[in-house]
Amino acid sequence: MRIALDAMGGDHGVRPNVVGALKAIACVPDLTVVLVGDSAQIESHLSTGAYPTDRIEIVASAGVVGMNEKPVEALRKKPDNSISRCWQLTATKKTDGLVSAGNTGAVVGAGLFARRFLKGVRRPGIGALMPTEKGHCVVLDVGANIFPKSSHLLQYGVMGSVLAKHRLGIAEPKIGLMNVGEEEGKGHELVQKTYALFRNSPFADRFVGNVEGRDVHKGLVDVIITDGFVGNVLLKHAEGVFEFIMQMVATDVVGVLSAEKALAAQAVQKLADKFHYSTAGGAPLLGVDGVCIICHGSSDERAIANALAVAAQDVRVQLNDRIVEELAKLPAFGDED
Amino acid sequence: MRIALDAMGGDHGVRPNVVGALKAIACVPDLTVVLVGDSAQIESHLSTGAYPTDRIEIVASAGVVGMNEKPVEALRKKPDNSISRCWQLTATKKTDGLVSAGNTGAVVGAGLFARRFLKGVRRPGIGALMPTEKGHCVVLDVGANIFPKSSHLLQYGVMGSVLAKHRLGIAEPKIGLMNVGEEEGKGHELVQKTYALFRNSPFADRFVGNVEGRDVHKGLVDVIITDGFVGNVLLKHAEGVFEFIMQMVATDVVGVLSAEKALAAQAVQKLADKFHYSTAGGAPLLGVDGVCIICHGSSDERAIANALAVAAQDVRVQLNDRIVEELAKLPAFGDED
Repeated sequence: MRIALDAMGGDHGVRPNVVGALKAIACVPDLTVVLVGDSAQIESHLSTGAYPTDRIEIVASAGVVGMNEKPVEALRKKPDNSISRCWQLTATKKTDGLVSAGNTGAVVGAGLFARRFLKGVRRPGIGALMPTEKGHCVVLDVGANIFPKSSHLLQYGVMGSVLAKHRLGIAEPKIGLMNVGEEEGKGHELVQKTYALFRNSPFADRFVGNVEGRDVHKGLVDVIITDGFVGNVLLKHAEGVFEFIMQMVATDVVGVLSAEKALAAQAVQKLADKFHYSTAGGAPLLGVDGVCIICHGSSDERAIANALAVAAQDVRVQLNDRIVEELAKLPAFGDED
Repeated sequence: MRIALDAMGGDHGVRPNVVGALKAIACVPDLTVVLVGDSAQIESHLSTGAYPTDRIEIVASAGVVGMNEKPVEALRKKPDNSISRCWQLTATKKTDGLVSAGNTGAVVGAGLFARRFLKGVRRPGIGALMPTEKGHCVVLDVGANIFPKSSHLLQYGVMGSVLAKHRLGIAEPKIGLMNVGEEEGKGHELVQKTYALFRNSPFADRFVGNVEGRDVHKGLVDVIITDGFVGNVLLKHAEGVFEFIMQMVATDVVGVLSAEKALAAQAVQKLADKFHYSTAGGAPLLGVDGVCIICHGSSDERAIANALAVAAQDVRVQLNDRIVEELAKLPAFGDED
């Protein structure tokens, strides 16, 4: 299979993308990576070693969307930027999908502009994996749709379940709705309407109702549905609070030890690695035709390699066909949903 | 000064409230606590020891709002419940404020019904203290107002600043707006409008712009403004993720040690205590006439004692007078704000 990689994406330039691609093809035998971006820069990083030229291709594009640029404006000004070119390759079936550590808004925006949604999908959403006491759960949306309708959230529950099944191996994923309290009737109009939609849907038996912020890491549910604003704050908060606490553990716990200080420091490092975002391999934009994996801006080569492997896996299990099948079970929505 | 304590509030019944009140008067010389609730139950916990009868009073009330009851319904069905009685004592100036670990929705609801807002206040909001690398920051609202207007959020910035000044000792608190990205123009209509209101307000020089979920614990800002839905998810997520990580540290770090295992376990416990919600002493409902401190449902006697001490301190510094003074600096709002 073939995955387009936005070679220009991320905070660290071309290098981690090219090296990540080389790592990925070494691990995933049937993968070809199409590096999209400035050919000269890409080639300069490739020239340092031997690589299988039949499994690394270069597609030149001009212009890069900066990490802090306004997505819509940037996409318009630079029509041949690396992100749009990745989408174009995917839309024309020259690749099965794309991976980008670039401007998230631009990756989503270019995907929405292409309007190649999967059959039945109202709005694509980003699903992120978050660690729990029992493994991982899927949280979506985490930033593609900050003011969704209830029908969007219902579809996110369905798409998230497909991801949980095929990525996490959970046969019957349980779905929870992020809210400010557990009881039915809590929250604003959007969550109340979404609650009712789930209860009356073919997925009612998998819908456990409302969950709260404190439940995210307990592993009570496998899929947590929320609007892209809350999901984005939550995902970034998890990252920030994890760093904050691990730093305190390093000073206040490891720091007071002497004989076993090195051993404890090693264990802390292992824990930090286990939950580092780079191991998750990026977050998929679900609901679009073709696989799209969005990586953290600060992704290193390991994170890029993991994201490419994950993209290949999603293609292999035909994740999108499974999504279309499941969405077809939903009844038609009303205009207000 | 005199603080009403909802003796029936919380998950653990009357005992932690009564014992917490006794602890508080031992530490705060000018404090009298008015215990509100079932007299027989309150007296049974008081009878076990000597206490200064001039500083612990009992006001009988009938009916308790259950922790999971629907607030509006419960308040209507049980007009003489302990929460409403605490508000009544405060509204009639028989007490300077109230503390409750009861149903948060009912505490806020009864306060809103009383309609005794401070001069100029559009909607009260709950301010919570969250730990940062540099101390604490104030996050508000965390649950009183889940669908606010931009003028509410602007006022929260002002009220939160007064709290940061008098509770945290920060002379010129910096204010940040929770958003999905740092750049101006990010987010939905509410945050965009709020951003513009701040930039054109007399507090523009203290407004640093947007902050993201990962910034909460960095100490970049002293006051973080957000709607009550996001704030509630954030506060509860912090609690959940802290427990989750500390549990992993206990098994994966402390668990691998031998000679210094006890020393490390002790350090972990100290860290857990330092950031336990009970040390924060509850979250104030800002914008109402009288001090109102809302405690965690699972509050123990230490948490209740801390909340009473904090309430006394807020009365002492005339926090509400300072809030009214600062709010008076804001220009009149438009109908759409």
